[in-house]
Amino acid sequence: MARVPVVTPVSRAVALRRQYEAVRAATAALAAPLSVEDQLVQSMPDASPTKWHLAHTTWFFETFVLGRFVAGYRPVDASYAYLFNSYYEAVGPRQPRPQRGALTRPSLEEVRAYRETIDERMEAFLAGQAGAEPDALDRTELGLHHEQQHQELILTDIQHALWSNPLRPAYLPAAPRPTTAADPAAGWIRHEGGLVEIGHDGDDFSFDNERPRHRVWLEPFALARHPVSSGDYLRFMEDGGYRRPELWLSDGWAAVQQHGWTAPLYWQRDGERWSEFTLRGTVAVDAAAPVSHVTFYEAEAYARWAGARLPGEAEWEALAELQSHDGNFVDSGALVPVPAVTAETRMFGDVWQWTASAYLPYPRFRPLEGELGEYNGKFMSGQMVLRGGSCLTPRSHIRPSYRNFFPPGTRWQMSGLRLARWE
Amino acid sequence: MARVPVVTPVSRAVALRRQYEAVRAATAALAAPLSVEDQLVQSMPDASPTKWHLAHTTWFFETFVLGRFVAGYRPVDASYAYLFNSYYEAVGPRQPRPQRGALTRPSLEEVRAYRETIDERMEAFLAGQAGAEPDALDRTELGLHHEQQHQELILTDIQHALWSNPLRPAYLPAAPRPTTAADPAAGWIRHEGGLVEIGHDGDDFSFDNERPRHRVWLEPFALARHPVSSGDYLRFMEDGGYRRPELWLSDGWAAVQQHGWTAPLYWQRDGERWSEFTLRGTVAVDAAAPVSHVTFYEAEAYARWAGARLPGEAEWEALAELQSHDGNFVDSGALVPVPAVTAETRMFGDVWQWTASAYLPYPRFRPLEGELGEYNGKFMSGQMVLRGGSCLTPRSHIRPSYRNFFPPGTRWQMSGLRLARWE
Amino acid sequence: MARVPVVTPVSRAVALRRQYEAVRAATAALAAPLSVEDQLVQSMPDASPTKWHLAHTTWFFETFVLGRFVAGYRPVDASYAYLFNSYYEAVGPRQPRPQRGALTRPSLEEVRAYRETIDERMEAFLAGQAGAEPDALDRTELGLHHEQQHQELILTDIQHALWSNPLRPAYLPAAPRPTTAADPAAGWIRHEGGLVEIGHDGDDFSFDNERPRHRVWLEPFALARHPVSSGDYLRFMEDGGYRRPELWLSDGWAAVQQHGWTAPLYWQRDGERWSEFTLRGTVAVDAAAPVSHVTFYEAEAYARWAGARLPGEAEWEALAELQSHDGNFVDSGALVPVPAVTAETRMFGDVWQWTASAYLPYPRFRPLEGELGEYNGKFMSGQMVLRGGSCLTPRSHIRPSYRNFFPPGTRWQMSGLRLARWE
Amino acid sequence: MARVPVVTPVSRAVALRRQYEAVRAATAALAAPLSVEDQLVQSMPDASPTKWHLAHTTWFFETFVLGRFVAGYRPVDASYAYLFNSYYEAVGPRQPRPQRGALTRPSLEEVRAYRETIDERMEAFLAGQAGAEPDALDRTELGLHHEQQHQELILTDIQHALWSNPLRPAYLPAAPRPTTAADPAAGWIRHEGGLVEIGHDGDDFSFDNERPRHRVWLEPFALARHPVSSGDYLRFMEDGGYRRPELWLSDGWAAVQQHGWTAPLYWQRDGERWSEFTLRGTVAVDAAAPVSHVTFYEAEAYARWAGARLPGEAEWEALAELQSHDGNFVDSGALVPVPAVTAETRMFGDVWQWTASAYLPYPRFRPLEGELGEYNGKFMSGQMVLRGGSCLTPRSHIRPSYRNFFPPGTRWQMSGLRLARWE
Repeated sequence: MARVPVVTPVSRAVALRRQYEAVRAATAALAAPLSVEDQLVQSMPDASPTKWHLAHTTWFFETFVLGRFVAGYRPVDASYAYLFNSYYEAVGPRQPRPQRGALTRPSLEEVRAYRETIDERMEAFLAGQAGAEPDALDRTELGLHHEQQHQELILTDIQHALWSNPLRPAYLPAAPRPTTAADPAAGWIRHEGGLVEIGHDGDDFSFDNERPRHRVWLEPFALARHPVSSGDYLRFMEDGGYRRPELWLSDGWAAVQQHGWTAPLYWQRDGERWSEFTLRGTVAVDAAAPVSHVTFYEAEAYARWAGARLPGEAEWEALAELQSHDGNFVDSGALVPVPAVTAETRMFGDVWQWTASAYLPYPRFRPLEGELGEYNGKFMSGQMVLRGGSCLTPRSHIRPSYRNFFPPGTRWQMSGLRLARWE
Repeated sequence: MARVPVVTPVSRAVALRRQYEAVRAATAALAAPLSVEDQLVQSMPDASPTKWHLAHTTWFFETFVLGRFVAGYRPVDASYAYLFNSYYEAVGPRQPRPQRGALTRPSLEEVRAYRETIDERMEAFLAGQAGAEPDALDRTELGLHHEQQHQELILTDIQHALWSNPLRPAYLPAAPRPTTAADPAAGWIRHEGGLVEIGHDGDDFSFDNERPRHRVWLEPFALARHPVSSGDYLRFMEDGGYRRPELWLSDGWAAVQQHGWTAPLYWQRDGERWSEFTLRGTVAVDAAAPVSHVTFYEAEAYARWAGARLPGEAEWEALAELQSHDGNFVDSGALVPVPAVTAETRMFGDVWQWTASAYLPYPRFRPLEGELGEYNGKFMSGQMVLRGGSCLTPRSHIRPSYRNFFPPGTRWQMSGLRLARWE
Repeated sequence: MARVPVVTPVSRAVALRRQYEAVRAATAALAAPLSVEDQLVQSMPDASPTKWHLAHTTWFFETFVLGRFVAGYRPVDASYAYLFNSYYEAVGPRQPRPQRGALTRPSLEEVRAYRETIDERMEAFLAGQAGAEPDALDRTELGLHHEQQHQELILTDIQHALWSNPLRPAYLPAAPRPTTAADPAAGWIRHEGGLVEIGHDGDDFSFDNERPRHRVWLEPFALARHPVSSGDYLRFMEDGGYRRPELWLSDGWAAVQQHGWTAPLYWQRDGERWSEFTLRGTVAVDAAAPVSHVTFYEAEAYARWAGARLPGEAEWEALAELQSHDGNFVDSGALVPVPAVTAETRMFGDVWQWTASAYLPYPRFRPLEGELGEYNGKFMSGQMVLRGGSCLTPRSHIRPSYRNFFPPGTRWQMSGLRLARWE
Repeated sequence: MARVPVVTPVSRAVALRRQYEAVRAATAALAAPLSVEDQLVQSMPDASPTKWHLAHTTWFFETFVLGRFVAGYRPVDASYAYLFNSYYEAVGPRQPRPQRGALTRPSLEEVRAYRETIDERMEAFLAGQAGAEPDALDRTELGLHHEQQHQELILTDIQHALWSNPLRPAYLPAAPRPTTAADPAAGWIRHEGGLVEIGHDGDDFSFDNERPRHRVWLEPFALARHPVSSGDYLRFMEDGGYRRPELWLSDGWAAVQQHGWTAPLYWQRDGERWSEFTLRGTVAVDAAAPVSHVTFYEAEAYARWAGARLPGEAEWEALAELQSHDGNFVDSGALVPVPAVTAETRMFGDVWQWTASAYLPYPRFRPLEGELGEYNGKFMSGQMVLRGGSCLTPRSHIRPSYRNFFPPGTRWQMSGLRLARWE
């Protein structure tokens, strides 16, 4: 993360104010191509309307920064605590998640005005003395990383919403996609194992679930230099991957049967060829690009079919710390995974990579104090860890220690996989 | 129905053109108070977005009039047949009903443009020779009555959508409600029974399900002059109505238990008093006005509690033919049921009245020929008949022979009841 | 119904005692071919275990006769009121219907002992003075007709249970089935319509829902002399009956899609031929025998396909009163519908015939007084009337005025159909 | 595990023959107190009938031993492969799990005869040369451990079935329960952490999921000497444990709300006191005995409330290897958890202990070859590990490396918890 060096509390405040402006503006830019109607729709219970994301991220600053640090703070609208609370039990009751799409009021215009009001109040707050206190800065920084998470969700949720419309409208017009002569012979990168350290350390920002840094014993292993490509995945499909129970976990096979999966989400067969719906419209599947929108179950079955396995998150992190952090992030504007043009190791960007690790607390994990303790810790059950960030993740949001997590049957995120093997 | 007298085919065409303009303008007027966002939302699978109603009624004219009678007709947009078909299997597949709210595109603006285009084409068509043919006029007339049905649905659906928002926004500002000194002693109106005729006859418009006119034997009976009022209904509630299984049909009691019903839909207890959400916002329950938003089960239980019963639809019609057809329709602008100011019989308006009759075909019933045969006939199962029109029904839409129908557990329509008894 | 003529209250008591013995013995005989395990199983929520039927019918006498007329009566087991109450809210809470199969205790042996104890007590009661009172005799008679209804349910429920076992064991060994050279040209029987009377009258037993006898106006009509045969139904299937939405009610078409129906329940395709599972094992479908195990929806779709319709229950009854009441009842021992051997009208036996009539109260209908008022009246919603009795109905149980009723999607009863047409 | 020392292949065969007889006899003994009806019932989809367990364990030997090693083996009944296959996709289709209770045939008598036939064949096989081959012995040994797993399931499933009956019959009569003056001050046992080895090694039997033995890094920790008692758990309940969302994982809190949990399964409030249903009938909750029938969610919430946490499975195993393996197993005949009578560490018996570890493969895990590869590996998703065995587990079945696993919402197993903390 391109963090401005921290010199004094005051200069950290200055840096955060700039960051605040940049992050908030980036959110607005993501919503810009969408109509008022697009921003209201909720196409499934797991997804949220763009308008709701715009309001919720704003409510986060209002509630957890202004509301906590500004004496006698009066909320812009008392009803917003109910409407735009996501899941904080400590804050009170809230609009049921599956009904977020019913909120035609407040209007998008009102939500935009709400953003502006809070931006003004936040700027004033951060410019003052109270806003330069470490606690206030910590909360503000958390709010910015929180908003970056919602930036990615805005994109994954709207992709699902647009796909749910039989007209299949594109979020942005198609862009020329990079072409490569062939799938580069990427190969494997080896790690000798032993006692390693993972997890975040130091003063830089991280979420509580990345801490504390701790020791883990690893057996020697290797990871593929590149994520699995759509071309690789097509070979799995053509080899009967979706029809062979011996390749699947029991829960995965049950999901295949129940939902009738035969390909990744958004893929569609057009005669002999496969196309896929992306944020840039429906395009031919690019065999050289990383495959995306697969569940943990599909990733795991693919790995078994390939005679390999998924990496543990400690393996992933131990190795990623030693590699380049570059990659295809949302900043590139591609909005889709792109083929590698060299055989160099690419640990970051393009697609989140399912790991073999359940999302569980690290040794001596301590959630944030108070109401924000609900941010991460209470979801440590029934989910798998993903690593590396995607083409929809802001570059400044990702780190080697970053732990994303979703239930194993999740398909609408920008999720792919990387192979691992024992050495 | 205030029909212009039919003199010649040409003059019928002229009359219909005027009617076309009026009905189409009335629909637009109903949507006018709603924001772009309001018009997109679908708050439950049974309801539809306003925008969808606007488009579907237009598609009806395009498909069943222009598409059938204009040689070489080219649709405005080929995708609309999929998007805006309601349930016509003969026309082809369609957007699943519960996903109508996902249609952010076409935009409301595009739908409005679609309405304008079809209006222009319909006007041109009706002005020409082909448009003056009886078949074309019949279809056009059907389309207008179809659109009037959707006018009422626009209102019932948006009431549910606005109520689903915790802010409970009003469709229109509150209006002064008429007050009456007391519940008028309405009493009963008697019918001696015998062999009567019901059903529609003659050249005037009716739906196929109202035909043919036929004989029915009736035992002597009486109907209440007025619908049951909210005050009456409150007494039922206070007498444990929702807690006494002996008052209920088995299906009704199961529904009470499953949904936890303790009052009509939209009612809410505020301490000692009851308020209800209406199209004009949340207001105190008016004890003198007809109760609305009750299911057939509640109507039936109320009647049993009152020592009476619901009328059969033949009883209702035989008696209604002899009474005034005046009442509180959508034309009054009240948008809520209002108290009676006299003791005179009021058979029409205010609330649809659940009858004791299942919705079944009349003897020698024949559905319309062809694809429009699906309009009414295929729903003759699992539904109960309602009669009389409501405060959301256009006055020109209703007749004594008019048969509305909904499943017995339906609550979001403007449904109430009238008592009957044997003499 | 072969009722012993009623001369005096005393002789009525004598007659009922003989009837009591016969009916109770008949129930035991139906259970005799079944193992202890067979009698416990509940293969779906709508069906009940044989053991439960044995106990519930006994509990009925204990509760509604002995418990009401014997001073200081002490129940055999206080828990039975909970375990064996079917649906009487007035009697108290009860074992949820879908969990009747969980009742491994009391054991079958205990239930048989319960039957014997109650039989002894009933015999003593009926032999005494209190047992000769009209009220007591009425209740006893009701209990016997109630038990006959459960005799049919024992058979339909065990057929479903045995079919749910992949071994498909037969209830009884196969019996030679009557053969006919050909489907007799049965033709139609005409009724001129007019003002007719239907419903039960007089002192003979009937259920409350058959009363009172009342006038109904009928248009001229004709009914088929025979029920629709499996051969007829096969022609409907071969003509794409299950794939053509235009033949179906909307609810019916939805059920076809949801359940994937392509033939009646219990039918199975074996290469070119169809076989069906019966109480006498899996046999080839007999084209000449009445088709059974179809829903109302299938019956209605078949009738539309055949250019006919289903009869109204008043039509059926008006005509059935004039015909022979003979037929293939459970007394024949066939346990399956059999082909007609003559072209004579057969209104009764073989299969219950779905009518076009919703199950609703007759004019001036009055349920039984008190707790037994729940017997029939509270189910008058969401069900269709069937008429005529089946090959599983006791002959002495049926009458022209008899109204059976089931929801339109019911398949596991011995339900078929007869065609009607307007004249 | 009390294994007879392996000297030569022949003597291993002899030892296994004795073990075979003992294990098979133990299963029959568990079924002995149950009636024919008890052994048929399936009270929920997760549980299976006793009869099914009896047959399935037998089918396991027939299919995976006799069917694989006896040339030209002919199965006792071809249909059993369908009826009694649990989940082996490689073996073919099978009776759906939730419908196992529908199998009234084969009768219990036939299943007992099946057991006898297979016992004779197995004895003959094991006495011959083919039966002394290592592969055959390995499979036989697996079959015995498999059957021991089902012995515990017979007990947990029948407890649920008997509890589902409102009569709440006991499996065995109440036994005097040991009493203790007070909850012994058990305290904690410390482990210094570091690089430890866990997992099974050597020639002794273990399941594939316990292998290979491998290194794990542990931070210093301590485990409670005793499982959490019912008295401890009552204090959690009295402190609002089930009403405080901050104590729960998000999935756990959702489960509490959905199911309305307020106490462990089988607990019931009687006025001021709590009783619980056990295999020995309904008894007062014993505050000094380990609490059982809690989900992972409840265990995890309790630990948070207590200011502690659940142990990781590696912590548990590293410490358990150093402790006594004694405990209250099924061999004691208690069939319920019992209070500790000393303060000594008790790692085994009484209740399975939920760990904080997701059930995942060990490094370099290899499932068994072939069809039995489905035994354990395919369930490594969505489940949590439990350790230590319970009062329903055979003593010879358990080891420090033994990994039991169930979904986190499972309540009907004999599951409790032990606290852990960092040092």
